[in-house]
Amino acid sequence: MPGPQLEHSLNLAWLLVCAFLVMFMQLGFAMVETGFARSKNAVHTMAMNLVIYPIGVIGFWLLGYGFAMGGLEGWGPLGLGTSAHAELGFHVGSRFFGLLGASKFALVSVPHDPANLAMFLFSVVFMDTAATIPTGALAERWKFSAFVVYGVFMSAFLYPVFSNWVWGGGWLAAVGVNFGLGHGEVDFAGSSVVHMTGGIAALAGTLVIGPRIGKFRKDGTVALIPGHNLPMAIMGTFILAFGWFGFNAGSTLAAVEPRIAEIAVNTAIASSAGALTSLFYVWQRHRRPDVAMACNGLLGSLVAITASCAFVAPAAAALIGVVAGLLVPSSVELLEQRMRIDDPVGAITVHGVCGAWGTLAVGLFADGSFGEGWNGVEGPVRGLLFGDPGQLAAQGIGVLANAVLVFGASMVFFRVVERLLGNRVDAEVEMAGLDGMEMGSDAYPRD
Amino acid sequence: MPGPQLEHSLNLAWLLVCAFLVMFMQLGFAMVETGFARSKNAVHTMAMNLVIYPIGVIGFWLLGYGFAMGGLEGWGPLGLGTSAHAELGFHVGSRFFGLLGASKFALVSVPHDPANLAMFLFSVVFMDTAATIPTGALAERWKFSAFVVYGVFMSAFLYPVFSNWVWGGGWLAAVGVNFGLGHGEVDFAGSSVVHMTGGIAALAGTLVIGPRIGKFRKDGTVALIPGHNLPMAIMGTFILAFGWFGFNAGSTLAAVEPRIAEIAVNTAIASSAGALTSLFYVWQRHRRPDVAMACNGLLGSLVAITASCAFVAPAAAALIGVVAGLLVPSSVELLEQRMRIDDPVGAITVHGVCGAWGTLAVGLFADGSFGEGWNGVEGPVRGLLFGDPGQLAAQGIGVLANAVLVFGASMVFFRVVERLLGNRVDAEVEMAGLDGMEMGSDAYPRD
Amino acid sequence: MPGPQLEHSLNLAWLLVCAFLVMFMQLGFAMVETGFARSKNAVHTMAMNLVIYPIGVIGFWLLGYGFAMGGLEGWGPLGLGTSAHAELGFHVGSRFFGLLGASKFALVSVPHDPANLAMFLFSVVFMDTAATIPTGALAERWKFSAFVVYGVFMSAFLYPVFSNWVWGGGWLAAVGVNFGLGHGEVDFAGSSVVHMTGGIAALAGTLVIGPRIGKFRKDGTVALIPGHNLPMAIMGTFILAFGWFGFNAGSTLAAVEPRIAEIAVNTAIASSAGALTSLFYVWQRHRRPDVAMACNGLLGSLVAITASCAFVAPAAAALIGVVAGLLVPSSVELLEQRMRIDDPVGAITVHGVCGAWGTLAVGLFADGSFGEGWNGVEGPVRGLLFGDPGQLAAQGIGVLANAVLVFGASMVFFRVVERLLGNRVDAEVEMAGLDGMEMGSDAYPRD
Repeated sequence: MPGPQLEHSLNLAWLLVCAFLVMFMQLGFAMVETGFARSKNAVHTMAMNLVIYPIGVIGFWLLGYGFAMGGLEGWGPLGLGTSAHAELGFHVGSRFFGLLGASKFALVSVPHDPANLAMFLFSVVFMDTAATIPTGALAERWKFSAFVVYGVFMSAFLYPVFSNWVWGGGWLAAVGVNFGLGHGEVDFAGSSVVHMTGGIAALAGTLVIGPRIGKFRKDGTVALIPGHNLPMAIMGTFILAFGWFGFNAGSTLAAVEPRIAEIAVNTAIASSAGALTSLFYVWQRHRRPDVAMACNGLLGSLVAITASCAFVAPAAAALIGVVAGLLVPSSVELLEQRMRIDDPVGAITVHGVCGAWGTLAVGLFADGSFGEGWNGVEGPVRGLLFGDPGQLAAQGIGVLANAVLVFGASMVFFRVVERLLGNRVDAEVEMAGLDGMEMGSDAYPRD
Repeated sequence: MPGPQLEHSLNLAWLLVCAFLVMFMQLGFAMVETGFARSKNAVHTMAMNLVIYPIGVIGFWLLGYGFAMGGLEGWGPLGLGTSAHAELGFHVGSRFFGLLGASKFALVSVPHDPANLAMFLFSVVFMDTAATIPTGALAERWKFSAFVVYGVFMSAFLYPVFSNWVWGGGWLAAVGVNFGLGHGEVDFAGSSVVHMTGGIAALAGTLVIGPRIGKFRKDGTVALIPGHNLPMAIMGTFILAFGWFGFNAGSTLAAVEPRIAEIAVNTAIASSAGALTSLFYVWQRHRRPDVAMACNGLLGSLVAITASCAFVAPAAAALIGVVAGLLVPSSVELLEQRMRIDDPVGAITVHGVCGAWGTLAVGLFADGSFGEGWNGVEGPVRGLLFGDPGQLAAQGIGVLANAVLVFGASMVFFRVVERLLGNRVDAEVEMAGLDGMEMGSDAYPRD
Repeated sequence: MPGPQLEHSLNLAWLLVCAFLVMFMQLGFAMVETGFARSKNAVHTMAMNLVIYPIGVIGFWLLGYGFAMGGLEGWGPLGLGTSAHAELGFHVGSRFFGLLGASKFALVSVPHDPANLAMFLFSVVFMDTAATIPTGALAERWKFSAFVVYGVFMSAFLYPVFSNWVWGGGWLAAVGVNFGLGHGEVDFAGSSVVHMTGGIAALAGTLVIGPRIGKFRKDGTVALIPGHNLPMAIMGTFILAFGWFGFNAGSTLAAVEPRIAEIAVNTAIASSAGALTSLFYVWQRHRRPDVAMACNGLLGSLVAITASCAFVAPAAAALIGVVAGLLVPSSVELLEQRMRIDDPVGAITVHGVCGAWGTLAVGLFADGSFGEGWNGVEGPVRGLLFGDPGQLAAQGIGVLANAVLVFGASMVFFRVVERLLGNRVDAEVEMAGLDGMEMGSDAYPRD
């Protein structure tokens, strides 16, 4: 076998193994969210996390992948066309004005093409990560049928649109080439594309659907509603941290890119710095090492390093993690105490807030050691601290665009569903627990 | 390092990583089965799933691998001899009349040979998958000592025989060359070899051992016996779906086979289609989204796509999954309500019925895009719909041969054990739960 | 891409994937230990296992890696300098007299260097495996703040010292070159470096901190304190067995080393032999198949095969596992009944005793088929049974050195902490459970 073909095979195997790891993260989400839910809603919470996977796969296969990636012709590291990252904006297929791809629906036009099939698998598990985030924020009250409709909306339409803008050759990728703002929005593995999208959709959902009964009392106090299985939530956190290595390092699309080592190391260091920061911050404030907050600090810093993991050195990764570790407890408190938003698992903070921070962090800390030619712009990617304020502007535009698109579209979506179907179970179902009347199954029947 | 050697190294690493993933599926089985069992039998159920792994490894090492694969001389993609799949029937080692291999026992004749050692590991975890299936159907009543004897029988004898017939150069692989029936039986990753074998052995076991006390009432009604931990069963389903990527994509034995991408995609799409089909089918019938059935639909469609995952396009994979998703609830009902067979986890349906369907599906949907020279027959593999009715006949013969061999041998085995040792715990042990008197350990002691 | 570069890429990808698997073992430890703890201490036990990961990553990043590996210049299989194993002692960087490395702190001197970054990741997850072992032996009574200080001590100082002696070009690696004792201490994947270190530190900790209240009664009898979730402990065992494939096979540092297949097979066979040995040994003695003991037998034999997995054939691996499987129940009984040491999970036995056995086993069974030039000594590695008594002496010196260093340093450490901070929670906290007063969170709140 000739060298180039062998190189493609190595990259293909790498991409698939990493995709498997990302798919496994679905279990992590299921466990974190179910552990933080009450036992009367355990089946419902876990069922949403189970079912979002097949809904997402089918929705993304039929429509989403075409919208997201239909505008690209191929991926160099996988043996077809040119490098996704380096050459975006130059080798493009069918698309609608840089806003949406328009080919490869149901993979019909790329039968038996390894590069597209591997990219589909890698992309669909990323999409499913985004899609499963709101199931945490809306846990314990979301009507299952409304959730199913949401799953189709997210996988087939909303995620693909923003994904196309950044990763599919769309306009955010092109603000560098077109307007001279750095390399356009640079989001290595999805702080904005995946996590902000999920977090902002979760925010819109909670605003429409409202808090759980009993969360905010009439006297203004806030009830603490502890989850039923904290060990399960901790175990889920581990699984997410494990799968995240595939999430970040796999986003090179290529094992032959030696940066995979630094990406993995940055992922470990940032998440560790963030977990310890949240742990010690809450410990000194409340005199107890709050392990649930340490979990969210770990996850929030994983979200934060995701956009920049390939562009920064370990020390910067640690700093990005520390900031995320401070943001997590502060934002959780702000949302719950001040804004009276009920997010049982902290998904809006972990994915939305830390996703925004991580996206901006590229514009601050990218140190010029990587990303030559990214998005069709000459030279490596540099943030403000390394001489390119335009990159920070591009990142800011990306954050803003995500917030506007995802929040706007999600508000419209949830309001339409509210009218047509209702987003929320009846109060009596919620009080009794969704497992019985909504799902027809108890999580832990007595013998 | 020269190119061919590097290629072998890549394939070896791929095969090992996939073998690790398949080994990890043992945990998925343990969790699905234990979650569906009552808490008084949780230790017993999980112990069977734990212990089948070492029993299987030792039994297959000493005898099974030699019977299963001793008839082959080597594997091209791993750097020895010739391709297992493409050249079966031509380059063979010691064997007994195409019915059994006869070398490599205890790996003594292949010391330090990477290709055989990797094939052993990949094969033994497949065998252990088959072997662990009956522990679900026979849960909550199987005597532990009888189970241990079964583990030896399955790993050292029964599985190796059928495996040899299809994958070891045996007569089912040769019905193409010898009788012109397509490419002989084609089972890419084991719908028949692994899953039907486990499912049919489970069926024989349940017939001999009988239903759990209280399952079928004297008035003809059937008791619902819910498992003690539905979230555990759902988590186990995820783990199986994760490991299954290694199961199917690893069965190329080679990372340099670009079909690995399509195999992984087909696995995801078929399982998603099957899960949703079971979910919606039961939802519209019983007005509740039954998540346990969605799990079994997902697993049943994974079983079904296993034989054909390399030979079909994604749309056909979806169709194969949809059919499996319909088969699962129907077959579960049929077995329980009509045939009064007590299978606590649905293993006979998921592995036996869907395994048969998946094996036949190759004979319907293989589209001629893959499998050139498979089993020594020229041309790619084609099913009935793509012009080769002989392939469907070969698949049908494979299904029949599996049913006859496995059912017959298992019936004999279980009856002999019944006489010598007894298959079932005493009624008082069963009523009290097997954890206490049979295993001596409670799953969840009070503090 | 030229062949050598592609080879490095393959090795880098292999090392990273294996590092991910080893990181995942943290979850296995968390589950085994928490399952064997009482529910009133479940959050505390799991929190220690969660938090040791980030503490370890940061401590090893800032200091530990420099002490452990700062004495080496590069790793051949990863594309820099020369082979770690084959050439140790010849191509060295900054070091203190063969006792400690002295460069690469905070990875500052190796920015963006893939080989060092991958080695850091692989090394840090090994360190974290060692560091998490004492959390099991000291469960249910360890003050969380004292545990945090311990985490820093282990990751930044103690583990790096012994690791340097064996793997970092230190004096134990050099007793072959310097004194003619075989190849110096040979510990392929860490029976001594990782597991004995953790087990001996655990022993020192239990001696200083003492048994749990109520474990040893005044009348001389020993209370059985069952854990709260045996299925969780079994599931954790599976996860450890899964991740261990990365632990052992990844320690080649190279996918192009064909020995990876035999390593993986030996790992499976030794652990299976050990699990069955413990199971049957206890079964015939106590008339019950004790699945907890089977788990510890499986883990103990994994520990035992870790040092020798690359140097022995499968039959020797089985024998090493059988011995470990006999050691486990005997040592557990000895420690608890005779020496009155309270180790809730059996960590001292599994990691300390079996780690010593595994280290010695290299000196007995290494068969001369591997390890050419290891530690700068000509020829392959041979144990006593294959003609080199010097190798057994080197192994014995390694075991002794580990025991002296780790036990001595740990005793000093725990005594200093005892004076400054206290190692143990108050008796009332211990009686009530550490989750409430120490951690501020219940594991399983009622709804």
